[in-house]
Amino acid sequence: MPRKGDATRGGNKQVPPKETRLTLRLDFEGAGRLGPGKMRLLELLEANGSISAAGRAMGMSYRRAWQLIDELNRTFSEDVVKTQQGGVRGGGAVLTQTGRDILNAYRGIEKKAQKVAAAEIALIARALSKS
Amino acid sequence: MPRKGDATRGGNKQVPPKETRLTLRLDFEGAGRLGPGKMRLLELLEANGSISAAGRAMGMSYRRAWQLIDELNRTFSEDVVKTQQGGVRGGGAVLTQTGRDILNAYRGIEKKAQKVAAAEIALIARALSKS
Repeated sequence: MPRKGDATRGGNKQVPPKETRLTLRLDFEGAGRLGPGKMRLLELLEANGSISAAGRAMGMSYRRAWQLIDELNRTFSEDVVKTQQGGVRGGGAVLTQTGRDILNAYRGIEKKAQKVAAAEIALIARALSKS
Repeated sequence: MPRKGDATRGGNKQVPPKETRLTLRLDFEGAGRLGPGKMRLLELLEANGSISAAGRAMGMSYRRAWQLIDELNRTFSEDVVKTQQGGVRGGGAVLTQTGRDILNAYRGIEKKAQKVAAAEIALIARALSKS
């Protein structure tokens, strides 16, 4: 059976570089912070329409998910998530326009950083242990 | 007391935005990670010529500082820090060329990300609570 890239790789031991994931944190001088966990929670909330489902998808208790959302709502001057009528767990939850704007901006920073700093990220990835 | 979404925001009340600090983490698929703590430690080590002094400057025990440096040395195929003769604590420590390259690349990613994503960072900063 023919193998890919047979004998010719010899001199040039190219080990495929490990996937390097860049994540961002934004710190607001003690006025809260944003990181990948909260942003993922917002994304899952948007997809599931519920805080509890979003938390569950991250292996998080409802209480913990709710705390993080509450923290986000306090960090910003307008709510990031709006819960809907129907009791504490009954109603759904949606991102507000502010919530969507913040999530989009955060993902935009990630994408731009990954792109503009591709050479530096590759340099670091190449220096990794081969094991 | 002004309430959220009070409609008066159209006026042009420019509150100076809080300082927003962007920090980066790089994750290498379970093969280690880099973040602001380790990078700061390398910087202080470079400035002080010693692991213990660098750790002290970060309020870290010698043991903890040493563990982080050891972790870094294992993460990369070449040592990031080289300790010099003179017993466990006696000799100094310096960054290797690999260590300097990685530190520079990391700072470069930060600088580029902050610059290229200035608009997104500003958008998020403007949405912060005014308190």
